[in-house]
This record gives sequence, C-alpha cells and structure tokens, in this order.
Amino acid sequence: MAIIESVRWSPDGDAVRIIDQTQLPATLVERDLRSIDDVCDAIARLAVRGAPAIGIAGAMGLVCSLVPFAREGREAFGTRLRAYAERIRATRPTAVNLPRAIERVLARASEVAGSSSTVLEALRAEATALLEEDRAMCRRIGEHALSLIHDGSVVLTHCNAGALATGGIGTALAPIYLAHEAGRRVHVYIDETRPLLQGSRLTAWELSRAGVRVTVIADGAAASLMRAGVIDLCIVGADRIAANGDVANKIGTYAAALAAQHHGLPFYVAAPSSTLDPSLPHGDAIPIERRSAAELASLGGARLTPPEVDVDNPAFDVTPAEMVTAIITDEGVYRRPFDFGGNRGRPGDRGDQGGFTSMTSMTSTTSTT
Amino acid sequence: MAIIESVRWSPDGDAVRIIDQTQLPATLVERDLRSIDDVCDAIARLAVRGAPAIGIAGAMGLVCSLVPFAREGREAFGTRLRAYAERIRATRPTAVNLPRAIERVLARASEVAGSSSTVLEALRAEATALLEEDRAMCRRIGEHALSLIHDGSVVLTHCNAGALATGGIGTALAPIYLAHEAGRRVHVYIDETRPLLQGSRLTAWELSRAGVRVTVIADGAAASLMRAGVIDLCIVGADRIAANGDVANKIGTYAAALAAQHHGLPFYVAAPSSTLDPSLPHGDAIPIERRSAAELASLGGARLTPPEVDVDNPAFDVTPAEMVTAIITDEGVYRRPFDFGGNRGRPGDRGDQGGFTSMTSMTSTTSTT
Repeated sequence: MAIIESVRWSPDGDAVRIIDQTQLPATLVERDLRSIDDVCDAIARLAVRGAPAIGIAGAMGLVCSLVPFAREGREAFGTRLRAYAERIRATRPTAVNLPRAIERVLARASEVAGSSSTVLEALRAEATALLEEDRAMCRRIGEHALSLIHDGSVVLTHCNAGALATGGIGTALAPIYLAHEAGRRVHVYIDETRPLLQGSRLTAWELSRAGVRVTVIADGAAASLMRAGVIDLCIVGADRIAANGDVANKIGTYAAALAAQHHGLPFYVAAPSSTLDPSLPHGDAIPIERRSAAELASLGGARLTPPEVDVDNPAFDVTPAEMVTAIITDEGVYRRPFDFGGNRGRPGDRGDQGGFTSMTSMTSTTSTT
Repeated sequence: MAIIESVRWSPDGDAVRIIDQTQLPATLVERDLRSIDDVCDAIARLAVRGAPAIGIAGAMGLVCSLVPFAREGREAFGTRLRAYAERIRATRPTAVNLPRAIERVLARASEVAGSSSTVLEALRAEATALLEEDRAMCRRIGEHALSLIHDGSVVLTHCNAGALATGGIGTALAPIYLAHEAGRRVHVYIDETRPLLQGSRLTAWELSRAGVRVTVIADGAAASLMRAGVIDLCIVGADRIAANGDVANKIGTYAAALAAQHHGLPFYVAAPSSTLDPSLPHGDAIPIERRSAAELASLGGARLTPPEVDVDNPAFDVTPAEMVTAIITDEGVYRRPFDFGGNRGRPGDRGDQGGFTSMTSMTSTTSTT
C-alpha cells in the first residue's frame, strides 16, 4: 500500500524530505530542507502543514540546519542552536506541537556532554524518536479504530487528518488505511472543506494514491447524502478536546456531526491523546481562531466576493460531546460519558469495546490547520 | 435604494439590457442584446441566469432580434420568428421558464392580425407584460414576508434567489430589500454556496450594493453560527415544491434547514407560486440533477482535486416539509401542514398569519440555478 510519508529523513540523512503540500493535488514535489532558511520557509508557507507534521519537521529541520556547523566549538554551536531553534519556533506561533518539539530537542542538547558533533548526533536521535513516536501513535489509533470499519463501509470524513498532517498514517485516516490494507472495501466520501480545501486537495490525494476509493463532495452535500442513506459512519480528527469530550475541529465538523446525529449515524473522532486538554472544562472555553477573509474572498487569483464585503472565517468549530459516539486515541477508545478531567477514564482497546478507570491526565494540545 | 435590475429594455427599446453575471463580483458590466446571436450567447454562457430572469430575457430578446425584420412580409417574418424562438429555447433545455415564456410570445403572435410591424409591437407588449408580472410577483412575495423581518433581524440565506435571478427584487431576498427600504436594520449572513458560489459572488454583491449589511461565510460555518446564537431566521428560495411541501433547492439547503430545526430557528422558503408542483406527491419524486465534476474539481484555472478522482455534484437537495416553517409565495403565506395538491389551501396574506381554503391548483416549475 502506497501511503505517503509527508516528513522523513533524506537518504543521506542530512536533510528533511517533505512533500510540498502547496503543490498538491496538481504535482507531487518532494523537497529536501537543509538550511535554516529552507526549514523556516517550508513551514511558513505551509509546504508542510498539520500540527504533528510541523512539530516533527521543525525538530528534524533544526538538526539538519546544524550539520555544516558540527565542527564549531561547543559554545558557538550552542549559541547557534538556540538562535536557529528560536527562528523555527517563530514561523508559526499558534500551534503547540512545534514549540513542544523544539523544546524537547533543546532539552536533550543541555543533557549531552562532549563535542558539538556528539551533541548533533544526540539531537538527531531525539528528532528521530519524535518521528517514530508519531508514527506509532498513528498506527495505534488506526488499530484501536479498525473494528469500526467493515467490508463495504462508506465513511464520511472532513478536512485532512491523514498522513499529510502527521509523520505516520494520520489519525482519522489511520483506520481507513489499515482496513484497506486488511482487504476491506472502504469507500470514503470527502467534504472538500472550505475554505482551504484540505479535503479535496489533500485527503482525496493521499487516499486515492493508496488505492482507497474516494468521492469528493461539497460540504453542503453531506447532509443530503446521509438522508439518502449513502453514508454509514463519520470519522474526523480533532484540534483540541475538552475535559467533557467537546471537540474543536475544522469548521464544518459540527454541521456534519449534527447531520449524523439526525440520521442516527455514528460520529467518531480520532486524535492523538495529546489533543485531550483537561484544563478546559468544555468546548466553549476553546478559543476559536478567526482567519483571514482572503481565504473565502479569492482563490487562485479569482475574486470570489465583492471587494470590501464582510467575511466571517472561523477556522474551527466545537462539536458537543453528546454528538460524538466515541473518541479514539492512541490510548484506546473512549465512549460517552467522556471525562478527560483529572481522573481520566481508562479507554477500551478496541472500537467495539469501552470502559473507564483512573488514569493520569495530560495537558497538551495540537492544531492541524 | 439601489436594487439592481438584471433584465430590462435598453433606453431605445430595441435591446435587452442585462447585467453580465459572469463578470460579477469583480465588475458591473451591462450588455445590450440585440441580435439572435447576442441573446443565445448570453443565455448559454450564463451571463443571465436564474430561471425567471432567463425566461424574461429570452422573450424580450426574441422581440429585439426581430426588430430589423419588421418590414418583412408576414409569412417570412413568421418563419423567422419560429426559427429564432427555437434557437433561443434550445440554449438551456432544462429550465421550464424559458420554453414557457417563448411559448407565450409565440401564442400571442398567432392571435394578431396585420403587418409584421404590428405583430412585433404585440410581442413587445407581451414580453413587457412578462417582465412586469415577474416584478409584481417578487414584490408580492416581499410584502407577504415582510412581517417576518424585524428591526435588528439577523438572517441566513443560501445561494441567490435575488434580483439577479428574477426580473424584480428576487424571491428570498425580496422581504430583505423591503425591510431595508422600510428602515429596518437587517444583517444577512450568506452561505458562499459551493460549488458555483452564487452566495458569495451574487447575493453578497446585490445586497451590499443596495446598502444591506452582509457577511459571507463558508457553507460549513452556518450551523456553528446558529449554535452561537448569531442567526435569528433563515430564508431561502426554491426550485420546485412538491404537493406535501417538500422543497427542492440548491445543494446545501437541507443542511441549513437541519441546523435551523436543531437550534429552534424558523426556516422560510420564498418562491413564485409557479414553483408549486402538485403533480409531485413528495420531494423524493423530484429528480435531482447531477452536474459536472468540474464545478468542484477546479476554479479559476486552479485544480482543486487530484485528476481522475471521483466527484459527486448534486445541484439540488430536498428539504422535508416538516423542517419548513412557512412557504411564502406571491399568493401569500402557507404554513404547515402544507397541501399543494388538487385542493391547495388558501394562504394567509402576511407572514404572521395563515389559513387554508380551497384554491385552484397550478402545475409549473422554475429552476434558478
């Protein structure tokens, strides 16, 4: 199965090889990021996107950008490391994964004795660990959710919570890849996901490339397809999940959840456990980013709205927990009632099971715009 | 108030002056259609769109195209009339308004004695009557629905059921124009309406030009705005309404109606009485046109989906009658339970009233793509 790898080491190990997502779906262009300028530029112009992928690319890119300086004295090298780290971290200040990944690399540097070259190898190992942990996280999500997808299942998804957004096989798309790999026939309807079209541009591209049957639809068509009985279940990703199970995800997710509830269809959220945020009691405490009007006002040079007309462009919405059938993380499957507060329940290990006992809480968030 | 007139006579009376909707929202270009080629070309390339507007432009254009031939003998003139009528009718075979308008002009011609010039003037009068009846129809819809819109109302609409789609002030937008004219502050949220963007390109243009406050949103954002309490009511147009009140309208309408119902918001449909189709018992009997994949696959030269990926592009959906609060036509306001069968009820004459007694049925449809 040809699942793409959106972030990996180049064959010589001295560059981060990324898929340039600004060129999709027209062309598959891979770029090797070697210098600090390469890395910052790729993140800033969204050549690499999706919070997990950005974090990994930032950490790996930091390592690559230091390769030419491995013979510098330790002090000069350390100064350079901190300066480069700061530059990379500043490229996208909102998502939490990037600063967290950079912090982890910096912390490792401070633990290592020896030459700059020794430090560099330790940092490379740390960045590799980040990549591998992300891959493992994706696969665990896919395994926990695999039982939700049967032979012949017709799935609706929204936005891109796939291989292009992570270092591995994605979150919402992970069980789809594994079901396909297991020989189950899966048909995925994909909301195009206005305004940035992550569904039609990215999800359609990566799933069809892997041989999964896909159909792209306008966001407004999903509800009537459910009414027509075409859809069996919905799976989406998440940007942040509150303690009560309310889910913030790409704008349009709530509309899909509402339609699923009305038509009695299961609505699943698949996300890294790092997305669970017990510090937020409910979804209305999640700040909703309002993005540029330009995303709706023009496309590919074509003007879509009259000049100076007001545009409201919330990037995310909140789906209340009562509309979510289950939340699948790398830890397992959580079913309602959700409680991700101080004593988060213990999840089931398969999509068709559940159960809750005390677990340690985690405070962290991801963003996959 | 600057409500645009999308179809009218030119000052010299020998051309149809239309707003070229292919140039919106970037530029307001008016075109005078004089020859048969002008008329056919304008309809075929959607320079004029919206079923009522197409019907009127076709009838008026037929008259204009005959002006240079008013001195022909009556037989030659009659042959030309039928040939031109056929050419115009063939430009868009689907919508029913265009053939109906052309039929009406042809029928008038067969009734008139005298010279070709006398016939031509009778046809001009008939086309003018069509235009004026459409204007009156729009205004009556607006008056019947005016009481639904209060000072400070925040309205959601979808697609374009406005002045650009009719000879008058539109259907769904008619009460908004009249409320604005009456000094009520109205704020209209407009679904951009993928794939053809009639909301962001056309509705935003004509309402903002008339001084109405508008905000364009992605289709997927409407439900979460309702959840946030931003929207007070929804008004949309209709392409066809079945005997039981099920409404076929632009794809995405059903999703909006479903969200309105969930949030307890009124959902109104405003449409010409010619849209009521008692021959169809319910909405599932309405054939849903599947349009070209290209509408979702590319925009302004930019490719939005991978090549060869399947796209499903239904142009319309069906909103079940139980989600429709009231249907407002030029005849008045119909409230649930709807019955547009053989003995269609008598509507109320204002949005806050209702009532049903026997009325004659009408069999006809419109399409406003």
